[in-house]
Amino acid sequence: MKVAIIMGSDSDFPVVEKGYKILKEFGVETEVRVISAHRTPDEAINFAKNADVNGYEVIIAAAGKAAHLPGVLAGCTSLPVIGVPIKSSDLEGMDALLAIVQMPPGVPVATVAINGAENAALLAVQILSVKYDELRIRFNAYKKQMAEKVMEKDKKLQEKLK
Amino acid sequence: MKVAIIMGSDSDFPVVEKGYKILKEFGVETEVRVISAHRTPDEAINFAKNADVNGYEVIIAAAGKAAHLPGVLAGCTSLPVIGVPIKSSDLEGMDALLAIVQMPPGVPVATVAINGAENAALLAVQILSVKYDELRIRFNAYKKQMAEKVMEKDKKLQEKLK
Amino acid sequence: MKVAIIMGSDSDFPVVEKGYKILKEFGVETEVRVISAHRTPDEAINFAKNADVNGYEVIIAAAGKAAHLPGVLAGCTSLPVIGVPIKSSDLEGMDALLAIVQMPPGVPVATVAINGAENAALLAVQILSVKYDELRIRFNAYKKQMAEKVMEKDKKLQEKLK
Amino acid sequence: MKVAIIMGSDSDFPVVEKGYKILKEFGVETEVRVISAHRTPDEAINFAKNADVNGYEVIIAAAGKAAHLPGVLAGCTSLPVIGVPIKSSDLEGMDALLAIVQMPPGVPVATVAINGAENAALLAVQILSVKYDELRIRFNAYKKQMAEKVMEKDKKLQEKLK
Amino acid sequence: MKVAIIMGSDSDFPVVEKGYKILKEFGVETEVRVISAHRTPDEAINFAKNADVNGYEVIIAAAGKAAHLPGVLAGCTSLPVIGVPIKSSDLEGMDALLAIVQMPPGVPVATVAINGAENAALLAVQILSVKYDELRIRFNAYKKQMAEKVMEKDKKLQEKLK
Amino acid sequence: MKVAIIMGSDSDFPVVEKGYKILKEFGVETEVRVISAHRTPDEAINFAKNADVNGYEVIIAAAGKAAHLPGVLAGCTSLPVIGVPIKSSDLEGMDALLAIVQMPPGVPVATVAINGAENAALLAVQILSVKYDELRIRFNAYKKQMAEKVMEKDKKLQEKLK
Amino acid sequence: MKVAIIMGSDSDFPVVEKGYKILKEFGVETEVRVISAHRTPDEAINFAKNADVNGYEVIIAAAGKAAHLPGVLAGCTSLPVIGVPIKSSDLEGMDALLAIVQMPPGVPVATVAINGAENAALLAVQILSVKYDELRIRFNAYKKQMAEKVMEKDKKLQEKLK
Amino acid sequence: MKVAIIMGSDSDFPVVEKGYKILKEFGVETEVRVISAHRTPDEAINFAKNADVNGYEVIIAAAGKAAHLPGVLAGCTSLPVIGVPIKSSDLEGMDALLAIVQMPPGVPVATVAINGAENAALLAVQILSVKYDELRIRFNAYKKQMAEKVMEKDKKLQEKLK
Repeated sequence: MKVAIIMGSDSDFPVVEKGYKILKEFGVETEVRVISAHRTPDEAINFAKNADVNGYEVIIAAAGKAAHLPGVLAGCTSLPVIGVPIKSSDLEGMDALLAIVQMPPGVPVATVAINGAENAALLAVQILSVKYDELRIRFNAYKKQMAEKVMEKDKKLQEKLK
Repeated sequence: MKVAIIMGSDSDFPVVEKGYKILKEFGVETEVRVISAHRTPDEAINFAKNADVNGYEVIIAAAGKAAHLPGVLAGCTSLPVIGVPIKSSDLEGMDALLAIVQMPPGVPVATVAINGAENAALLAVQILSVKYDELRIRFNAYKKQMAEKVMEKDKKLQEKLK
Repeated sequence: MKVAIIMGSDSDFPVVEKGYKILKEFGVETEVRVISAHRTPDEAINFAKNADVNGYEVIIAAAGKAAHLPGVLAGCTSLPVIGVPIKSSDLEGMDALLAIVQMPPGVPVATVAINGAENAALLAVQILSVKYDELRIRFNAYKKQMAEKVMEKDKKLQEKLK
Repeated sequence: MKVAIIMGSDSDFPVVEKGYKILKEFGVETEVRVISAHRTPDEAINFAKNADVNGYEVIIAAAGKAAHLPGVLAGCTSLPVIGVPIKSSDLEGMDALLAIVQMPPGVPVATVAINGAENAALLAVQILSVKYDELRIRFNAYKKQMAEKVMEKDKKLQEKLK
Repeated sequence: MKVAIIMGSDSDFPVVEKGYKILKEFGVETEVRVISAHRTPDEAINFAKNADVNGYEVIIAAAGKAAHLPGVLAGCTSLPVIGVPIKSSDLEGMDALLAIVQMPPGVPVATVAINGAENAALLAVQILSVKYDELRIRFNAYKKQMAEKVMEKDKKLQEKLK
Repeated sequence: MKVAIIMGSDSDFPVVEKGYKILKEFGVETEVRVISAHRTPDEAINFAKNADVNGYEVIIAAAGKAAHLPGVLAGCTSLPVIGVPIKSSDLEGMDALLAIVQMPPGVPVATVAINGAENAALLAVQILSVKYDELRIRFNAYKKQMAEKVMEKDKKLQEKLK
Repeated sequence: MKVAIIMGSDSDFPVVEKGYKILKEFGVETEVRVISAHRTPDEAINFAKNADVNGYEVIIAAAGKAAHLPGVLAGCTSLPVIGVPIKSSDLEGMDALLAIVQMPPGVPVATVAINGAENAALLAVQILSVKYDELRIRFNAYKKQMAEKVMEKDKKLQEKLK
Repeated sequence: MKVAIIMGSDSDFPVVEKGYKILKEFGVETEVRVISAHRTPDEAINFAKNADVNGYEVIIAAAGKAAHLPGVLAGCTSLPVIGVPIKSSDLEGMDALLAIVQMPPGVPVATVAINGAENAALLAVQILSVKYDELRIRFNAYKKQMAEKVMEKDKKLQEKLK
């Protein structure tokens, strides 16, 4: 089980880190890379072309503004690519969202919410679960725990309001 | 290899059909269902809860307007859920896009472009390829063929303009 | 007279509380719950299905981002459901607004402004006033008081500017 | 049981009519009026001020562009006011949606989807059901029938695709 | 020469004040009022109906969110009404802009920029200049002074960068 | 009483014509010109600089896309300039609306709705009414007639629905 | 003088053709190519890397939806790249505009209007004019002719309205 | 090699300065001016008309809100004009972006990202490189250095995460 998280700029790491931690928690080997589709296009393309051979099974790509990184990687690999639109200081991340999700027919990018690095990691876990049963078991436990937390907060609030 | 395509209304079928045909082409067993998160919530939840046991490995969910179907299904299954925002007559599908992609942490939906049913199908193929090597081979062939078509069109245009 | 306020996350409480206080002021029995359409779907659906039998007459549901909670509850009850789009850190609450208001035909959600919990409470009061005459009397008094406050502020400003 | 449907222009009737028919189906006495907040402000205000006394229990107001009608009526009555944003030729109805839903604290308008006249009518039925039990019974039957139609379409599609 | 500045809430005064000061500078008699289209509709309508008789020649109306005030006043007077969309905490003032500018045929509102109270005042001066020649002279002086300030800043910057 | 209607392209005439006819109806001398801020900047500036001397009292400027014409004219005259955003084939006129209404402090443009040429004409009439009493009388008659038309349509609809 | 026009899909040719014709008119050697950033990434990158050596001086790139082509080419060349956002059936070209114009620091794309292929061609001519004086002469003639056309239309309209 | 940077207001200088520094770094003679299309239209037009004769080869124009400056300059010169939309306090710079990029056919503005002054400078360098070979050499070195910085950050992050 091996996932790559690529981001267009190291300034995106505070957002990306949340996803990285989740993948670690799930015991998925994860490499985090800074590769820019625009500033280091050769690295981006080489990474994507060899990702399969290098043992990666899912790629997560995070980028802001005119966010081309996920689409460029997706054009050069058969692996599923998950795109995370990063909110920049302008336009609230709407530019990155549209630049990632509106891919033309033939080259999909599995897009998650603006700054949604946690969900990108969980989606990677779900995708790997298609193959690895132990991951699905862990994911189901995670889901259950998440539900329990909500129910606990519900109880606390109701007690507080009594 | 088994995929479910769920749509919120049978009027979405002309869009969804493109994805259905691609999955057929790739030899993936595909069931198409009309289930509404709002009008038949029990069916939606039952489907999602049992999808894993019933042998499905990926769910594609298409919906328009306040498109809750993909998120509701994702809340009730550990399978990866791909969301297709359907363009309705108002707001150009922006409402469906935001209602699908902006999922809160914990429950991801892999969102593709507005009306992007082909890409939803190809993403499902990519996800299944994590497990099924024969699918990856077919996907790579598809990718190559797609590139060749572009190059052919390029040649034709250049000849035409000479 | 009994109203439920459901929110998708306890972090929404600072917004929701304003509505809760108004309902208290009007003497309406109000229960506040944390139930997530995505993380605790069973709780959401059970709540909605039994809300009528449990004596609730109106449901207020507040949620942010891809805000499915109001619509999911509305799909499982015949009670009027009031939706409050919560402003999250991205997209200014536009995602929640569209995900709540653009419900498909058959399952309405009475949507109020982004973060409009006060108005959700007042709308609940207006709805209950259809049945309970004493509430309409209180609402009319509230309306009158509101007008008087505006007129007082008008006077103060004019004096200040003299 | 008496509902008023007010529209800002008679050109909105093709949209509004769908809601009118639903109210008729449910046996709710319904009066349809053309009253403009901008061109006939006195009529608008008089209607709203006397609506309660004249036996109306819910007001539905439909308007396009800078859609002030629902808000103006809501300012002059204690009855619940349901707002229907009408899609005009520009801006896809987004102007009307924001002009109706973003009401300031104190004067709520229960907003439904762009051109959502059916849902406005169903919401009126739900509101009246708080008082009139027979309406809730009819609404539950309507909901059940709606679910059955979806399930029927689901079956047909599956048979077709076999 | 007499202008009224009406605002929907006294919290809008910090924005409105800039326009008030400009009108004072130009020697235009200006009354500032807090009148809400939704909370004090009678006051709004009475003000507008009598504005002409009461000697006002232009009305400036400022409001945020679902900003109906300028349109409601315009519906009840033949005086030119200038609308100032106020930026609220959500949606950056886009809701107020659309709710003010998109008036239906028959009842215009002269809309200025979001929070553009200075320009509302200057537009009032331009309108009054149609009648009062002395105002046009002052406006031309203001315009000249404004140009000189820009040219001065230009010089300073160029010196600084040398 | 003399008004100029300037449009950026003669293709805008079908929209502009509605305003032209209203001004004719009101007996206001009106000249219609095709002058482009971008293609014929000298003509634009000369027109604006001499408009006052040439007897114009109000300028209406209509333009689409990056609609600079109203602002450029406003920069070169002390006359009130009314801007009409023209809906082009892309972006529904939102580009023109923002390019016209969001003028910086110092140079206002009185903006009306997208394609709102009628309202531009009526606003011009209201502005001229500040000086010309006979126009106000005609405007009040127009307003009354408009109200009567609405009331007539109201009656017809109610009869039809009986 | 040699320009390349690259488009992501041959379906963009009807838009692109207008720019192609203008470049021909100006006597600029122009090659039109169909190269997709996503489907034929190697061709895209090879083209860009060798464009300088192959004698191109400006690149025009047109693409729709998540339009990465201009940015990808710009990442691989030092030539100025002009981006033309193509309007697709959804979102009016706003997705393509943001995906092209919002390039991160370091890799500019000179963006023109949605579907603005003529302006892309004229911008290429202006850029080449920095080096080739004869092009500037032709451009100035074009500009003059454009102004004359506007003035002619102005005259015709005024005669028609007399 | 001579470039002009014009900004509509000296408050835009903190953004513009980044581009100014880059041009200095590249050894391009650069003059920075404060000229407003609305407040000093004569200066704007005179500057543009004489820019060519005065030795400028590229013009960069930065403006916010209803940003007309780049388009007005472009209308009066044959030089390439690069537009920088400045983010103002409202609407996140979307108003300036649309007001700059959506230029009508005939008068292009080479638009860069919101607040994208660096890219405007780099684009000017690329344009000048068409003529000046030494600039292209420096640009290629800049591009290489930029790539190296990304690769360095990539290494650092990977070491940190080990």
